[in-house]
Amino acid sequence: MTMIRVNMGSGGVTVFPLPEVYRELAGRGLTSSLLADEVPSHCFPLGKDNRLVIAPGLLTGTVAPCSGRTSIGAKSPLTGTIKESNVGGIAGQYLAGHGIRAIVVEGKPVEEGWWLLVIAADGVRLEPRRDLAGLGNYDTVTLLKGEYGKESAVISVGPAGERGAALATVAVCDTEGRPTRHAGRGGMGAVMASKGVKAIVVTKPSISRIQPEHGELFRERVREFSKVLVNGKKALTTYGTAVLVNVVNEVGGLPTRNFSTGRNEEAGSFDGERLRQLCEERGGATGHPCHRGCVIRCSNIFHDEAGNYVTAGLEYETIALLGSNCGVHDLDRIARFDRLCDDLGIDTMEMGVTLGVAMEGRLLPFGDADAMEQAIKDVASGTPTGRILGQGATITGRILGVERVPAVKGQSMSGYDPRALKGTGVTYATSTMGADHTTGNCLPGRGGVDCHGVDGQVRLSRDTQVMSMVCDMVGVCVFVGPVVETMPFLAGLTSAFLGRDIPVEELLRQAREILLVEADFNRRAGFSPSQNDLPPFFRSEPLPNNGLVFDVPAREMMELDYA
Amino acid sequence: MTMIRVNMGSGGVTVFPLPEVYRELAGRGLTSSLLADEVPSHCFPLGKDNRLVIAPGLLTGTVAPCSGRTSIGAKSPLTGTIKESNVGGIAGQYLAGHGIRAIVVEGKPVEEGWWLLVIAADGVRLEPRRDLAGLGNYDTVTLLKGEYGKESAVISVGPAGERGAALATVAVCDTEGRPTRHAGRGGMGAVMASKGVKAIVVTKPSISRIQPEHGELFRERVREFSKVLVNGKKALTTYGTAVLVNVVNEVGGLPTRNFSTGRNEEAGSFDGERLRQLCEERGGATGHPCHRGCVIRCSNIFHDEAGNYVTAGLEYETIALLGSNCGVHDLDRIARFDRLCDDLGIDTMEMGVTLGVAMEGRLLPFGDADAMEQAIKDVASGTPTGRILGQGATITGRILGVERVPAVKGQSMSGYDPRALKGTGVTYATSTMGADHTTGNCLPGRGGVDCHGVDGQVRLSRDTQVMSMVCDMVGVCVFVGPVVETMPFLAGLTSAFLGRDIPVEELLRQAREILLVEADFNRRAGFSPSQNDLPPFFRSEPLPNNGLVFDVPAREMMELDYA
Repeated sequence: MTMIRVNMGSGGVTVFPLPEVYRELAGRGLTSSLLADEVPSHCFPLGKDNRLVIAPGLLTGTVAPCSGRTSIGAKSPLTGTIKESNVGGIAGQYLAGHGIRAIVVEGKPVEEGWWLLVIAADGVRLEPRRDLAGLGNYDTVTLLKGEYGKESAVISVGPAGERGAALATVAVCDTEGRPTRHAGRGGMGAVMASKGVKAIVVTKPSISRIQPEHGELFRERVREFSKVLVNGKKALTTYGTAVLVNVVNEVGGLPTRNFSTGRNEEAGSFDGERLRQLCEERGGATGHPCHRGCVIRCSNIFHDEAGNYVTAGLEYETIALLGSNCGVHDLDRIARFDRLCDDLGIDTMEMGVTLGVAMEGRLLPFGDADAMEQAIKDVASGTPTGRILGQGATITGRILGVERVPAVKGQSMSGYDPRALKGTGVTYATSTMGADHTTGNCLPGRGGVDCHGVDGQVRLSRDTQVMSMVCDMVGVCVFVGPVVETMPFLAGLTSAFLGRDIPVEELLRQAREILLVEADFNRRAGFSPSQNDLPPFFRSEPLPNNGLVFDVPAREMMELDYA
Repeated sequence: MTMIRVNMGSGGVTVFPLPEVYRELAGRGLTSSLLADEVPSHCFPLGKDNRLVIAPGLLTGTVAPCSGRTSIGAKSPLTGTIKESNVGGIAGQYLAGHGIRAIVVEGKPVEEGWWLLVIAADGVRLEPRRDLAGLGNYDTVTLLKGEYGKESAVISVGPAGERGAALATVAVCDTEGRPTRHAGRGGMGAVMASKGVKAIVVTKPSISRIQPEHGELFRERVREFSKVLVNGKKALTTYGTAVLVNVVNEVGGLPTRNFSTGRNEEAGSFDGERLRQLCEERGGATGHPCHRGCVIRCSNIFHDEAGNYVTAGLEYETIALLGSNCGVHDLDRIARFDRLCDDLGIDTMEMGVTLGVAMEGRLLPFGDADAMEQAIKDVASGTPTGRILGQGATITGRILGVERVPAVKGQSMSGYDPRALKGTGVTYATSTMGADHTTGNCLPGRGGVDCHGVDGQVRLSRDTQVMSMVCDMVGVCVFVGPVVETMPFLAGLTSAFLGRDIPVEELLRQAREILLVEADFNRRAGFSPSQNDLPPFFRSEPLPNNGLVFDVPAREMMELDYA
């Protein structure tokens, strides 16, 4: 396996064998290790000393189910912590197919400009491409596929990233070649843009250079695991992640009108059933994979009333945060927000929470979808208001004087009110990258812990964070379940892939080690466990729908330890 | 002595004897102790749980020289730390004269509105005064003096505070009754405004209720100390604080064009000599006291070319930061900035550094005084750009993507580049309230330490922080010198005042205790010593004029301990 280093200061590109010290590291294990080794913890996130690392997971590119994930990491301009943002789509499998374990982009161009990194079977090269400036992700992809072939994968940043917005994403093509999969969280798009890299094209590898050591055993384990997933994840396949609308609303934790209540009476107009119905009626699709080999297939294709494509991968988080949380209950409007954010390269989660805060701060009214659309465009065009919103919920709340800002360490929460999903609340408070459900989402019933209770939440969150890390290292989608039952499958696949026996306990130990590497980076960057808490209003302001407050003792969260 | 509690939630005002536990605490000793005891460390700074505490120093109101200081404290909306901002002017002496050791404003009004707190010999009352909304400090003072008598003291917030700007000040009248003295740092004006308190009128006490226990001894020690100050501080009396322009420029640490160099070749056009010359030529004044009994008299009155009053108290910090740091070298323009900031209630230091950062971020050009004037007005009028700038240098830098942001813990530095004045750099990094020279300014030559060297800086800063705390508790201006030579005078005065022997060591021990109380508040608020460092560019980017970088080891600063 190889690594690619792109030095934007010199314009030099080097391809070299993966150093021995990183031999078994991949995905988040590799992004976080590289960042901890190479990035000065106090550096300016958009400066020359930060690095952007793109690393497919260990099993990415194999036939392991749901294994097409890619980790994108850097010191985050949103949080100041280390960050890994995880994304599906086809690029990771292509990179792995070319034998590439990581791309490291470092330095900064001497002169401003935009570059394209081309990764093909015949080599890797950096090309100046000022003509890409200002393009939305959809246009970027169309243009580059025209040049490099329809089957190429594109990784790109939109205008929001070009503006340095801390909620800017890195977009990755889906199986239809559209930029609908996003490394959304933590402003990775701003870091990529700060390096002058507008896009990366990865041509389709003709043969895959990634092969398991024990091929037959691997394929057998793939079949077993696939069967379990196909049977166990039917709800996700049928409704997509929007199935969570009712699940989370039922437990009273659906973010509504800037987290002022956890129950939305209009959820029936935007839940999984409704989304599925619209997709079916209008010629869209549900049960759609974001990359080849996904057996869960939680994605969808959403059409408008006239049957024209609007967006793909309309997810629960987008519906909860740009919809319910902003007082918008119309899936058509939410789908257009999603398309706009995908095109401009904006994290729908941070954007939704930011707009909720801005609504509470009277910048625009709750439920005003037209004003929201304008505000999202403002982020990309860089009006003063757009620049404020583009820095996310915490900065927006600060500037508008809003107290109810649902964020931790500068990053907005996801679509789960922590008063009703307390394990996820612990994850928001303690994770190595601010409020982020993907680092350890404790959905109702997980680990046998009552999501409304206090007991066991810290342990559940800690264990879920560790098992989510396993998924992120191995390169499988976290929807396979960061749970005890999944771990033997991942250990079995990893063992067959590497050709040596890796017990579950070793996999978990590796995951804990990487979490400690991340926590140590943050410690060096000036963070301390005393910051591991939620904004005080979650403790003092009960959810009106169920009277719950967040009441996990702060001390227990401060003492959460991955070791 | 009494305390006043104003509950803005109920509108209730209570006056009661100073609790025994606070009996010998005053000034910053009292503001910080009260805040640590009563304010939840994680609270929203502009919310109901924060408190604004106004406390004259222990000797304020006596004839001790330079003892007219008042501490104004709260959890800071700029830094999130505990904060004390220290101010001269006449209000502190009036409060002490009425026998008041502290005013505590708590809660938040149920309905929005503006109130006036009236403190008179016949009682204390809160009056609704919507008519004061939006008034500049000059108009507020004029109006209230018309109502309450020419000799009343006014404490007020300007339009910037009303907007919630984190760089908003609390203004205090000077001896001419003008709002030229400001508790400038940390956004105390935003906290006062968040409580709905637009102004506090303090009528002149007919007799002073503050009397030293050993009157004769006290007066004798006053005479001794005054003599030392009159002889030792002639430069400040002659030129005002602007005397520092040349001192700091000489050591290569005068902030210039957003701290990109420490030497300004045009300093001759705005130094102390020039300021004195203009004041004399135009009928202004130098050697002017900001409160009665000041023997240093570093203030001035600045007129325009036509001989009309422009501003008073045109200070070094304002000249360095709104002038040199922004590429403006014309004292007339700087004086108008000062007047505007005084009127709108804006910290000239945070504003100057913020504009320097905004200039680097290409929001306006260096040296464009007209654009600066408009930007300062925007803060008060609340345009989107003004809202950004109103949150200070750190937020402005974040939004504009600027790396060179000279700030610590969200607060801008003062007029001393830490690469050339390393002890002050240590203070910026380690103080309990972010970058703030008033907590421990290590001017050239202080403590026998070479301001360009590394050796001894941490100890010098620590000792200067402790001795500055002594000044802030006792209520004397820090310009008497937070140095070893001053301490016996302050101990002697305090002993005679309280009627018991207080050795220097006890005074220093009390100061260290309060510093520990502040540090503990910050620890509980989520801060840790790992944040005690300067922005990395000060370590990596040498000052072009002398090649100096900031090179005090981070570990030594992390380990700085007040105990």
